[in-house]
Amino acid sequence: MSPKITTELLKQLRQVMKNPRFVQEPVQAYIVPSGDAHQSEYIAPCDCRRAFISGFDGSAGTAIVTEQHAAMWTDGRYFLQAAHQMDSNWTLMKMGLKDTPTQEDWLVSVLPEGSKVGVDPFIIPADQWKRMSKALRSAGHDLVPVKENLIDTIWTDCPQRPCKPLITLDLSYTGVSWRDKIVALRSKMAERKVMWFVVTALDEVAWLFNLRGSDVEYNPVFFAYAVIGMNTIRLFIDGDRMMDPAVREHLQLDSTLEPEFKIQVMPYGSILSELQAVGAGLSPKEKVWLSDKASYALTEAIPKAYRYLTPYTPICIAKAVKNAAETEGMRRAHIKDAVALCELFSWLEKEVPKGTVTEIVAADKAEEFRSQQKDFVELSFATISSTGPNGAIIHYKPVPETNRTLSVNEIYLLDSGAQYKDGTTDVTRTMHFGTPSAYEKECFTYVLKGHIAVSAAIFPNGTKGHLLDSFARSALWDCGLDYLHGTGHGVGSFLNVHEGPCGISYKTFADEPLEAGMIVSDEPGYYEDGSFGIRIENVVLVIPTETKYNFKNRGSLTFEPLTLVPIQTKMIDVNLLTEKECNWVNEYHQKCREVVGAELERQGRHEALRWLLRETEPLARVQ
Amino acid sequence: MSPKITTELLKQLRQVMKNPRFVQEPVQAYIVPSGDAHQSEYIAPCDCRRAFISGFDGSAGTAIVTEQHAAMWTDGRYFLQAAHQMDSNWTLMKMGLKDTPTQEDWLVSVLPEGSKVGVDPFIIPADQWKRMSKALRSAGHDLVPVKENLIDTIWTDCPQRPCKPLITLDLSYTGVSWRDKIVALRSKMAERKVMWFVVTALDEVAWLFNLRGSDVEYNPVFFAYAVIGMNTIRLFIDGDRMMDPAVREHLQLDSTLEPEFKIQVMPYGSILSELQAVGAGLSPKEKVWLSDKASYALTEAIPKAYRYLTPYTPICIAKAVKNAAETEGMRRAHIKDAVALCELFSWLEKEVPKGTVTEIVAADKAEEFRSQQKDFVELSFATISSTGPNGAIIHYKPVPETNRTLSVNEIYLLDSGAQYKDGTTDVTRTMHFGTPSAYEKECFTYVLKGHIAVSAAIFPNGTKGHLLDSFARSALWDCGLDYLHGTGHGVGSFLNVHEGPCGISYKTFADEPLEAGMIVSDEPGYYEDGSFGIRIENVVLVIPTETKYNFKNRGSLTFEPLTLVPIQTKMIDVNLLTEKECNWVNEYHQKCREVVGAELERQGRHEALRWLLRETEPLARVQ
Repeated sequence: MSPKITTELLKQLRQVMKNPRFVQEPVQAYIVPSGDAHQSEYIAPCDCRRAFISGFDGSAGTAIVTEQHAAMWTDGRYFLQAAHQMDSNWTLMKMGLKDTPTQEDWLVSVLPEGSKVGVDPFIIPADQWKRMSKALRSAGHDLVPVKENLIDTIWTDCPQRPCKPLITLDLSYTGVSWRDKIVALRSKMAERKVMWFVVTALDEVAWLFNLRGSDVEYNPVFFAYAVIGMNTIRLFIDGDRMMDPAVREHLQLDSTLEPEFKIQVMPYGSILSELQAVGAGLSPKEKVWLSDKASYALTEAIPKAYRYLTPYTPICIAKAVKNAAETEGMRRAHIKDAVALCELFSWLEKEVPKGTVTEIVAADKAEEFRSQQKDFVELSFATISSTGPNGAIIHYKPVPETNRTLSVNEIYLLDSGAQYKDGTTDVTRTMHFGTPSAYEKECFTYVLKGHIAVSAAIFPNGTKGHLLDSFARSALWDCGLDYLHGTGHGVGSFLNVHEGPCGISYKTFADEPLEAGMIVSDEPGYYEDGSFGIRIENVVLVIPTETKYNFKNRGSLTFEPLTLVPIQTKMIDVNLLTEKECNWVNEYHQKCREVVGAELERQGRHEALRWLLRETEPLARVQ
Repeated sequence: MSPKITTELLKQLRQVMKNPRFVQEPVQAYIVPSGDAHQSEYIAPCDCRRAFISGFDGSAGTAIVTEQHAAMWTDGRYFLQAAHQMDSNWTLMKMGLKDTPTQEDWLVSVLPEGSKVGVDPFIIPADQWKRMSKALRSAGHDLVPVKENLIDTIWTDCPQRPCKPLITLDLSYTGVSWRDKIVALRSKMAERKVMWFVVTALDEVAWLFNLRGSDVEYNPVFFAYAVIGMNTIRLFIDGDRMMDPAVREHLQLDSTLEPEFKIQVMPYGSILSELQAVGAGLSPKEKVWLSDKASYALTEAIPKAYRYLTPYTPICIAKAVKNAAETEGMRRAHIKDAVALCELFSWLEKEVPKGTVTEIVAADKAEEFRSQQKDFVELSFATISSTGPNGAIIHYKPVPETNRTLSVNEIYLLDSGAQYKDGTTDVTRTMHFGTPSAYEKECFTYVLKGHIAVSAAIFPNGTKGHLLDSFARSALWDCGLDYLHGTGHGVGSFLNVHEGPCGISYKTFADEPLEAGMIVSDEPGYYEDGSFGIRIENVVLVIPTETKYNFKNRGSLTFEPLTLVPIQTKMIDVNLLTEKECNWVNEYHQKCREVVGAELERQGRHEALRWLLRETEPLARVQ
């Protein structure tokens, strides 16, 4: 992977930063955030502006370009990748390390007095605008909105915004009709005394209308906004997608409906002017509910006194708690996914020793096996297929320049998942196809102990996920090890593989309490730069559990693994496990055998079944 | 304990809330916070305004009185106590429970449109003012400062503000001279480019000048403020305390000093006008550093553009990391404290069966034994001496109305500590003088497991204490139990028994990372309303520890118990302990034997020594 040469691009950007055609006054710094106008984590090619200007294409990062400097903030998952992809024009700012300045502090330290800092108001979330604007102002600078995106002005071959056909989901997948979701939303609005709700996140629009799209790779979403009033529904969406008879019927566009369920379809680009019209027409006490992560541009469309901003929207919270239909769908999807991975690992076991399987070949093979499963739609994120030192690049994606051949001498880490019409998967397994060293086994076993500590944790109703994060680290901490990423994220139901408002992280303080029906990942790891990476990830469902006692009648929760793929016992140093941990592994493997074994049998995949049976032999602890 | 009858007082308060002598415009609500003008947790009798108006005298709570309502917010430690102490005029707002409204939300729900909410600007911290003022404003109300404290206007027999003599501490206790502390503070000020630092917390003034006082019970502090400039030192303090030759010499008031170390002594009451003068004389870029918990009144004295507010002051952070002299002092204090407790428990063991020992007698006896120890000054907080159901009142203090007799049938919980000139102690032991039930032992053992999980935890440098909180709860959670308070607090060195900026709590998100030299308590518990309370508390020192590996060269930390008092083995269900936990108990008891045993021997306290030896017999696990 050679870095992108950005000298010329930065020169051009610095020119437009002073060009009165684009900026009212010259800006001394320009911020290029990661997201799109919906603050999506995964974005369409036309929105990859930060990657275009810097070369760094990880999923999280913010670039800031000044007249003299170009700096990139990203987190521990991407330190190595960003360092590889960026040329010497760029300074890498390692977030989470003690001496790394915040963007605001850095700007204040490098800017000349009274500077203007520009940013696209459609791309920056309102909460970030507020924080940054305040910090800059208190140091004598100004954050200013630059209407035309400056990257777009120099991006001559910028791709078109995608506008792909929609998929409609019936009740058997969603459990609740879009009408009922609107009713529930309006009742939440009435509780908070708001008259309007603006849906800005793409997955929230998709979830609300029980529609899916493919405008963004890996995330089955489509570019749209919605504005829900107490008596109106406006959907802002482009293209001829609304001409599709299936979509028209699903949304009942041609039916005689009660007016409050009649969907008005409007052009995607008209959201700002329509919202400004809503803002201008408000009577006192008519509030408009927006996420505090909605773009600064849309937030400003509503006069301050009328805004009701929350970190999580009622849709985000409702979406996180999966209903019975969604949970069953997720279970089915994970069984199919496990079938595909059993096939893959059984195949790898035979092929790796031949020396012909590269990281890319393995990733392609995983996709091939997954695509054979019913209702497969696409992958849920770029497969992380990494062996040896590449495994230490936490969000690695193999490309020809880095593509290593799997061997019997190196650890192989596969973090992959798929979108099925009934659910989203995300699983990481770390395998050795030869004989792992004692040290590799030791590290793997600590990670496994952390995985089990979270998965088997019992905790009171109302507990926030971040309170569980240290459980995943304790075994690593005991011997001086750790990993520089969170332990888990919310997972959508045939939606984004990363979703709020719950998660398990030392960083997440604004997470909502875990509730039965929520689905998160459990994925501790250990990474040794230049050597190997280990991660063990299951998607787990929050379920109620019975305990011996029941303090204050709060009730208790625990996790049920939805992922049912064997954890390689060869990598486990059984003597480091407690009896309880050993039993956990054995019970988990027993369930893999029963559930996935039956499906492999049904699909006639006998070789993979034999692999599964072999890999799920019970562990025995030496007493 | 019968509740305080407040009908008449509330009537009077509601009258002055409308009386133009005291308020510019009538206020529809009046807030009575817990603290004093220094945001102290423990306060002098003259500052106990919330207790005066409501009857509830716990250490934390905020009262709000409106024309119709009187409500009290407090946390889980005080639910029972507050309910007992307040009459039916008051509504108890249980903080931390899901359905309890915040003060702001409650005010908005009960106030008529366009209300004024009054508060004493010297008592409310600036950060709380800001939050509350914003919330009220967005609902159409106003938070207004009421200069004269309205409680004081109706409190006819309000006691005088104390003004007791000072104690000077030499280098053998403090390790660092006040001059060197000023130098270090000024260097922190220079780093942040601030010209002035305002010391508002009483323990910060005491620590900075190596002085102690006794204006507030249990906390060896004195009423004072300080304003430190780059070349000036102003100490605001009343009375003839500055006439004491020892104090004059300690502060070098009569010496020829470099001007920047010359202390100007000014009247306590002149702080506001002096600070306003400082504020008025600032040139651009001259910032003034204040805690964001400083009072609204003092914060407002500095124009907004010149304020530099931080959640923790540099003094708070420096004070938390104990130097070698302080650590050694704390060790000595804890050994003496353990001697006193061994005497006490040995005495209780003999006396309790006679049925003559009440909670108050036991508390007095504990104080008597402590007062026999060298450099004893006073208790560090009101002794919690509680048996049976009283143990479930988390911050219980025995009074004649509630005073129970200790018996061989009930659990006894003693949470107590002292101020010695060389250190502050805080220890809780839970004992049974007869035969505990299996259930009592079970609960005790879960609490012990949590205590050990924190005490023995190994974690990377830079870890915040709140990440360790769940370790203390895990064993309780496993069987559906929990406790409604944090796990630990910072402890001062011959200073406040509760101090920031570190702690171990699910609630503390703004805590500073733990560092070697910090001292915190480790005190999980379990409480069953109406039955019993269990808590096991040690004061522990953060120390560096060697681990097998050292990820990113961060280094690891763990805790060393300073408290060395046996944990009653009779209460332990050994079969619930892991081998590691069992070893921890045995090693801890071995250290108690060696260290405290030697001191008991030296002091010729043979009966207590025999008790210690008996109580520290090793546990044996049944394999």
